[in-house]
Amino acid sequence: MRSLNWSDGGLTIIDQTRLPAEVAELRIKTVDDLVAAIKRLSVRGAPALGVAGAYGVVLAARAHHPLDDSDGFDRAVTALRSARPTAVNLARMVDRVAAVARRSADETLTAAHAVRDAELAASVAMGELGADLLLELVERRPLRVMTICNTGGLATVERGTALAAIQVLHERGLLQEALPLETRPLLQGARLTTWELGRMGAPHRLVVDSAGPFLLARGEADVVVIGADRVAANGDTANKIGSFSLALGAANAGVPFVVIAPESTIDLDTPDGASIDIEDRGPEEVVSALGTSLAPAGTRAINPAFDVTPATLIAALVTEQRVVRFDRGQALELRSVGAVGNG
Amino acid sequence: MRSLNWSDGGLTIIDQTRLPAEVAELRIKTVDDLVAAIKRLSVRGAPALGVAGAYGVVLAARAHHPLDDSDGFDRAVTALRSARPTAVNLARMVDRVAAVARRSADETLTAAHAVRDAELAASVAMGELGADLLLELVERRPLRVMTICNTGGLATVERGTALAAIQVLHERGLLQEALPLETRPLLQGARLTTWELGRMGAPHRLVVDSAGPFLLARGEADVVVIGADRVAANGDTANKIGSFSLALGAANAGVPFVVIAPESTIDLDTPDGASIDIEDRGPEEVVSALGTSLAPAGTRAINPAFDVTPATLIAALVTEQRVVRFDRGQALELRSVGAVGNG
Repeated sequence: MRSLNWSDGGLTIIDQTRLPAEVAELRIKTVDDLVAAIKRLSVRGAPALGVAGAYGVVLAARAHHPLDDSDGFDRAVTALRSARPTAVNLARMVDRVAAVARRSADETLTAAHAVRDAELAASVAMGELGADLLLELVERRPLRVMTICNTGGLATVERGTALAAIQVLHERGLLQEALPLETRPLLQGARLTTWELGRMGAPHRLVVDSAGPFLLARGEADVVVIGADRVAANGDTANKIGSFSLALGAANAGVPFVVIAPESTIDLDTPDGASIDIEDRGPEEVVSALGTSLAPAGTRAINPAFDVTPATLIAALVTEQRVVRFDRGQALELRSVGAVGNG
Repeated sequence: MRSLNWSDGGLTIIDQTRLPAEVAELRIKTVDDLVAAIKRLSVRGAPALGVAGAYGVVLAARAHHPLDDSDGFDRAVTALRSARPTAVNLARMVDRVAAVARRSADETLTAAHAVRDAELAASVAMGELGADLLLELVERRPLRVMTICNTGGLATVERGTALAAIQVLHERGLLQEALPLETRPLLQGARLTTWELGRMGAPHRLVVDSAGPFLLARGEADVVVIGADRVAANGDTANKIGSFSLALGAANAGVPFVVIAPESTIDLDTPDGASIDIEDRGPEEVVSALGTSLAPAGTRAINPAFDVTPATLIAALVTEQRVVRFDRGQALELRSVGAVGNG
């Protein structure tokens, strides 16, 4: 299952706003349609947005030839780049393919496919490296793995990051069960991760977010694995709200806490977690769930979109290229200067 | 505002299943109606259930005279006692008033009023003692207080336990804001605590459960205060799921964590938290929110109704009679043998 596919001059995506009630495909043939789909979260997840943006440039180049109508092409590229301003992968991949298109329009589709293929290869590598590490960190067989948010094929193109490692464990017959947290307020765990685990036939039980640390204390999981939105130079990791609480619970229980994310999420320009601004997404998401009102009208809320887990609580970071063992004193900076480049 | 009131030979309760959408009163004149109201959670909270049960015995005695129709009376009492088997206050207060009724039927209503008055006095005392302690533990004025679940007048008769202390701070002009956690899966924080805070005019912002520990780490609250379902002899405290996670967050942030609960929740027969069985309430509550489905059909879940916070993470326990400072090495057993008796 791929969350998005290019065929016959257009992009087909699984509409994530319809999941899990319905698996509906959305056929996209214009930049405007793609921008709208990104804005309403029909496609989400930093790596998936990068690939969608790459193909968006192909749509832009077909509507406005980069040389004959460079103004029109530039406008379309700008619209794509800014559909989700915080998703750095989106702007980065749009820029990469747009540069190719301006040099040689015929190679635009090839460049977009290359972005997709790199993403697919990274997911495969993260799944394998991640599963190997989990097996190294945990003695018990089969494993019980707790996770948060959605880090599977829907957030990438196929397989994913943290969920890819869980999938590999399952494929190797070494997964007892996955314990996804529901991930309020937007419920990516309840809606999307359960759906992906169901499709891969992996046993799982859903858990409310606040029960995670307690279930770890009671010995219900052997390891916690999460994705990342941004990893600072010192290893501090910004990820979906709830990750930090889970890291405290893992530390309390003596359970290893592992981050799996592509090299492109490492941001050496951010020295540490304290330098990361936390976006507040406003009260709407908190006072409701999937459109159902939960609180009195007019209730105010604090709604941090993500939190920061200090590297001291993280056993290791797994990327498509390497494993950095924070628990053994390994650091990110020294090893990554060459590897990351401009990501 | 009282969550329940006796007048004109019947009980009037605020129907908590209709909150916060609507403040609907339910008029109850028979034991059957009261049992049904308790079962569907129109009235909830251990202290409130105790008082409701006490008045239920009055209804039972009017329908079946305890001496002339003792079989009918006993059947009604049994139905009341077992409407919520886990709420020890319910059975305890039903038994207390039924004993009076069997001795002297004319004194039944007086005995029920006495149960209510004791509950009202306990709430007032917990609010005052609790607020005094919070002011002692926190230097900052005014205070920012985080809490979980619903521990206000709806869970008692008026004012409450932890929320009573927040109300007293507000009445003294010393509350900057309350930060209630939404309290998945049943959302008592989002639905009921916000509503009570709104009615008392106290500034507040709602927070998803998993953001609590992170907001504490970022210095957004000065103290955490919760209620309790059961306090073991060593001070370990069972309370709504999410309390333990919040206690870990408070410890990490160096923020005091305070439990406020009546003496009747102290259970000296339970030596410690490890001896407390954790009830699993099944998947339904987790895979939905207020009737809206959140996860794919058939999704399994782990749903612990409460968790256990070790006394080592608790600064103090406040009851209507005393303050036990665990953070100063004070213990529960020595001081409480005489005070608690049979609760």
